[in-house]
Amino acid sequence: MSSHAHRRFPADFPAAPLTLEGFSILHQMFRIRRAEWRALEATKRDRAIAQASAAFDEMARREDGESALFAELGHKGDVMVVHFRRSFDELGEAQRAVGKLALSDFLEPTSSYVSVIEIGLYEASLALFERLFELGIKPRTEEWRAEIDAETSRQRNKIMPRLFPPIPERRYLCFYPMDKRREGDDNWYRLSMGERRRLMHEHGLVGRRYAGEVTQIISGSIGFDDWEWGVDLFADDPLVFKKLVYEMRFDEASAGYAKFGPFYIAIRMKPSDLASAFAV
Amino acid sequence: MSSHAHRRFPADFPAAPLTLEGFSILHQMFRIRRAEWRALEATKRDRAIAQASAAFDEMARREDGESALFAELGHKGDVMVVHFRRSFDELGEAQRAVGKLALSDFLEPTSSYVSVIEIGLYEASLALFERLFELGIKPRTEEWRAEIDAETSRQRNKIMPRLFPPIPERRYLCFYPMDKRREGDDNWYRLSMGERRRLMHEHGLVGRRYAGEVTQIISGSIGFDDWEWGVDLFADDPLVFKKLVYEMRFDEASAGYAKFGPFYIAIRMKPSDLASAFAV
Amino acid sequence: MSSHAHRRFPADFPAAPLTLEGFSILHQMFRIRRAEWRALEATKRDRAIAQASAAFDEMARREDGESALFAELGHKGDVMVVHFRRSFDELGEAQRAVGKLALSDFLEPTSSYVSVIEIGLYEASLALFERLFELGIKPRTEEWRAEIDAETSRQRNKIMPRLFPPIPERRYLCFYPMDKRREGDDNWYRLSMGERRRLMHEHGLVGRRYAGEVTQIISGSIGFDDWEWGVDLFADDPLVFKKLVYEMRFDEASAGYAKFGPFYIAIRMKPSDLASAFAV
Amino acid sequence: MSSHAHRRFPADFPAAPLTLEGFSILHQMFRIRRAEWRALEATKRDRAIAQASAAFDEMARREDGESALFAELGHKGDVMVVHFRRSFDELGEAQRAVGKLALSDFLEPTSSYVSVIEIGLYEASLALFERLFELGIKPRTEEWRAEIDAETSRQRNKIMPRLFPPIPERRYLCFYPMDKRREGDDNWYRLSMGERRRLMHEHGLVGRRYAGEVTQIISGSIGFDDWEWGVDLFADDPLVFKKLVYEMRFDEASAGYAKFGPFYIAIRMKPSDLASAFAV
Amino acid sequence: MSSHAHRRFPADFPAAPLTLEGFSILHQMFRIRRAEWRALEATKRDRAIAQASAAFDEMARREDGESALFAELGHKGDVMVVHFRRSFDELGEAQRAVGKLALSDFLEPTSSYVSVIEIGLYEASLALFERLFELGIKPRTEEWRAEIDAETSRQRNKIMPRLFPPIPERRYLCFYPMDKRREGDDNWYRLSMGERRRLMHEHGLVGRRYAGEVTQIISGSIGFDDWEWGVDLFADDPLVFKKLVYEMRFDEASAGYAKFGPFYIAIRMKPSDLASAFAV
Repeated sequence: MSSHAHRRFPADFPAAPLTLEGFSILHQMFRIRRAEWRALEATKRDRAIAQASAAFDEMARREDGESALFAELGHKGDVMVVHFRRSFDELGEAQRAVGKLALSDFLEPTSSYVSVIEIGLYEASLALFERLFELGIKPRTEEWRAEIDAETSRQRNKIMPRLFPPIPERRYLCFYPMDKRREGDDNWYRLSMGERRRLMHEHGLVGRRYAGEVTQIISGSIGFDDWEWGVDLFADDPLVFKKLVYEMRFDEASAGYAKFGPFYIAIRMKPSDLASAFAV
Repeated sequence: MSSHAHRRFPADFPAAPLTLEGFSILHQMFRIRRAEWRALEATKRDRAIAQASAAFDEMARREDGESALFAELGHKGDVMVVHFRRSFDELGEAQRAVGKLALSDFLEPTSSYVSVIEIGLYEASLALFERLFELGIKPRTEEWRAEIDAETSRQRNKIMPRLFPPIPERRYLCFYPMDKRREGDDNWYRLSMGERRRLMHEHGLVGRRYAGEVTQIISGSIGFDDWEWGVDLFADDPLVFKKLVYEMRFDEASAGYAKFGPFYIAIRMKPSDLASAFAV
Repeated sequence: MSSHAHRRFPADFPAAPLTLEGFSILHQMFRIRRAEWRALEATKRDRAIAQASAAFDEMARREDGESALFAELGHKGDVMVVHFRRSFDELGEAQRAVGKLALSDFLEPTSSYVSVIEIGLYEASLALFERLFELGIKPRTEEWRAEIDAETSRQRNKIMPRLFPPIPERRYLCFYPMDKRREGDDNWYRLSMGERRRLMHEHGLVGRRYAGEVTQIISGSIGFDDWEWGVDLFADDPLVFKKLVYEMRFDEASAGYAKFGPFYIAIRMKPSDLASAFAV
Repeated sequence: MSSHAHRRFPADFPAAPLTLEGFSILHQMFRIRRAEWRALEATKRDRAIAQASAAFDEMARREDGESALFAELGHKGDVMVVHFRRSFDELGEAQRAVGKLALSDFLEPTSSYVSVIEIGLYEASLALFERLFELGIKPRTEEWRAEIDAETSRQRNKIMPRLFPPIPERRYLCFYPMDKRREGDDNWYRLSMGERRRLMHEHGLVGRRYAGEVTQIISGSIGFDDWEWGVDLFADDPLVFKKLVYEMRFDEASAGYAKFGPFYIAIRMKPSDLASAFAV
Repeated sequence: MSSHAHRRFPADFPAAPLTLEGFSILHQMFRIRRAEWRALEATKRDRAIAQASAAFDEMARREDGESALFAELGHKGDVMVVHFRRSFDELGEAQRAVGKLALSDFLEPTSSYVSVIEIGLYEASLALFERLFELGIKPRTEEWRAEIDAETSRQRNKIMPRLFPPIPERRYLCFYPMDKRREGDDNWYRLSMGERRRLMHEHGLVGRRYAGEVTQIISGSIGFDDWEWGVDLFADDPLVFKKLVYEMRFDEASAGYAKFGPFYIAIRMKPSDLASAFAV
């Protein structure tokens, strides 16, 4: 860990680290209206499934931001649709496209989440701010902005594929939103950036131990939805979710500062699996 | 920052800053009842859309307090209608006008918010109270009221357009309600007015950095709805919402005193877009 | 303020102040089921409105405990009915009378509140307890009860009209329930009666400043509903609600001890306004 | 108060007081589906009422655990059914019996509560534990169990009628569930048994003052429902509920340790009153 | 208790104890849609019951992970289905199989829970970590992993039947989810493993006292559902649930660190009991 970990920068320095943003994400959770569905004529059911399968198949093949289907366990929903897109407008189109499906009459929306893939640059931000501080460059001056933009571009180019990834091809999905605490003595937003960096670094180490087993996508939702971040974990063995999240719960960033929303657990479906998911 | 920032005025001095009020606002969120809508004959659907488009078009052209349509992302709703009006009576009329639309049978109300555009005059209040204190004018005497009224009028004239603005013509809307904390050591309502002014000033500086990118409308809802304030942010790039709200979360007013309600994210629709939003 | 403000009476003295009770109150909030209503034949709609208008008109003319109609703003409901009655049995009858209306099939109950008009006698209680203490009269003895009953009767006679008032004829209604905190260091129920009296006195001063503009009715709901008190504010200008409640939020009783439930804002309707409120 | 009030027994002594259990209780709250009910043919309505009245009449006459009907005030429900039974199996039968009624199609379950009449033996437990401690009898040995069983039997015989009471014949019912706090400094479950006994004794004194006016039935629901205890208060004047619960809120057991759930207020109905409660 | 109870291992040692996992569990809670069910033709009802009874009968006879039916008390649901399976995929199949039943049209999902039978190895973990520490074997090296795997296998073999048990054949079920606190001073995740072991040991002692009367199955749900653990208690006398959970509430692990979700209480049904549970 570098030596400036706990320096407090002048008060006019930004408190938020630089972040890079990628795909916009919409999670949609639906419960099947079984009674109404079963009451539908078989031919209409078949047609609705065929139409939906084709539509989701096309969305799954999109080059630049795809959609994927999941079967949820439990009463929170039967079907989850995850859309990765280039913009909120494209998310809106995806939402409308799902709404237009005949199948949609039998899908009751139970939940959703709107976010944007986000990578927080704690290390780079601290290094850059340190340099700008030493050069005497003041925040939000033209010089400052130029430096920030240059660094941000450099970083973005390095990790472009992590910002605009495909939806990982693993069998299980664990999704949950979360906040950092702002209460009492455990107030994340009153920590120095160096301290937050240290905690996120430690937190990241836990994640890295599971690198081969879990693909993790973090998205930011401040200003978009009710929690600050969304976490999508993808794995081929769902027990790994439990091990990873349990282990993380002991690191200081989680033990002291994390608040968790609802957890959604789901199994990947191919569009062609819709027929059996809706079998009567 | 002026030198009297932390003076504690005598106990009979008002603790609340002067505020100016403008348009009354009603946010209405609706989910489309898709199954029922699709079951409607096409000609009736067309007629309902035509009627609604015309009605919202007329509301959008009102000179003195207009209405605007937004397409929400996620399950919290599909359509948001925002009404700016001169009075609560006019808001009531707007609500009834929406309720009268044939389309309304297919709009399930999921949420709403009632508030009034509000501008808090911390600087002016402190300066005026300081002057009245030095002049020995006692709170709530006739002299006092005359001074308050004069100051309020002066301020209102200066910022009239900010009190009765059009609905900003930007593509994205982020709306959320919020409170100031009254718990434990973080009790906003136990701070001196000077301290609150200092915190709101610092808070405002963050907003001002985004002045070109975000149009912000603050409305007060104490006594009208479940939170104390409503915040509407309008921008042409939704990522700016995330950056702005994230950055603000670190300032002392937010880190220590803000409690946030649900966040709504939506994309501007023209009344003529209703047809595609309701396409089956 | 009298000199015994902070005396702690012996532990067997009552901690609760004497209270006077008046009308029983039932607030009923309903959302209009628009699709079902519009689907009803016009003649049946007309008949339902005529029946309801007549029924509410009769309830509005009751001599001894009336009912009034309000149009709510927002999704919490479209119609609020407030019943003032002599007893819970009469409230039950009022509830059943509303339920019997044909219109009731199109009114979905969204909320309600049960309470009893209550006036807390902090000043009189302290003065009386002080006197009884000095006289050496022990709590709950026959002598004690006689004194309490005498004082209560005296007080009741003085303020009878405030206990059994008509529903104020002002245009706007703001209703909300509230609690006093019992958590951590801010525990209302651990304060001495003298301290509570002082805080309520200060709190009352704020209300009195708005006496001409706002008619306030406080009702007690401990044992009847989920919060401890209900507050009904009636005014001809709804902005006054915001100013009053905001100003009160800074007094110590609110800043330190108040917890607020949902806020309902509504506009008075005459029974003859039902036709336009339900116009299709 | 006895001298061993605050003794801390050895750590292996039970922390929970002995309790006696009586009837199993099920509270069922229902809202009437008015539109569907009114749409039913009059003869079918009459038949449904006749069937339900007969069924509830029979349940009201049961010798060993009866059922009673109440009309609720407000939107939480229109009808409350309270079942006292010998076992959970009998409660299940009662629930199914209600579900089988034709009327049940028009009763939407809004809430319920499952509990068992419970009398906590703080005094007896402390005296017995003191004696066993002095005799050197170790917890959970055969000797210990024999003493406990003997004491429990003795106590049960003394208060059998309070464990298996009829449903009190008073006109008004106030029901609410509650917890003892386990948070921060106010943690009921960290107090010594002597301290809890002292607080419950003081708490009981308040109740005893209302003995003639209120019949109170406490039931335990740890392991059965979402709160730890249920409280049923029966009185002929509902104002007494407010006075009693308000007064109790100041005693230390409530001020410091009580958390209250929703409050239900209802008026006793005879089975033959169903006809008027469901009149259209 | 061994002498190394409170040793703090080096920071890179795992904070979570080793755990063993067994069956995946899905709890499904349903309310019967009585009006729709009663409206169904008797022959169709009979057929639906016959089909469901046969299906649940088959699931009850599965060799390697069975399903069981329970009748709930109260409004949270009428029917609970508990599935024990080898994998989440099998749970998904079970969920779909229930959804495919004609009866399913009359079952409204009210709740559910997803978890995995879990046994925490505090004792073994501490002993092993102690040994590895003394041997100088570093966490997550190949040597370390080999030791962990060996120990885990050893333990798993010892308790295989507890990991893959049948659903206990007792008449009553009490199910509830729970968390360990991460707030303020009572933060479970900041305790040393030795301290957690001590608390869980003490907690376990209470459970062991009820060993003959209650069969307890703990399942982990971190990453799968909204709480961290699920607790299923099975007994032949439901009063034992109250006694056990009450007694546990006083042990330090519960008094200081436990947060409880909703409690579900239910009575075992044989598949052949469905007919009477759905009798009209």
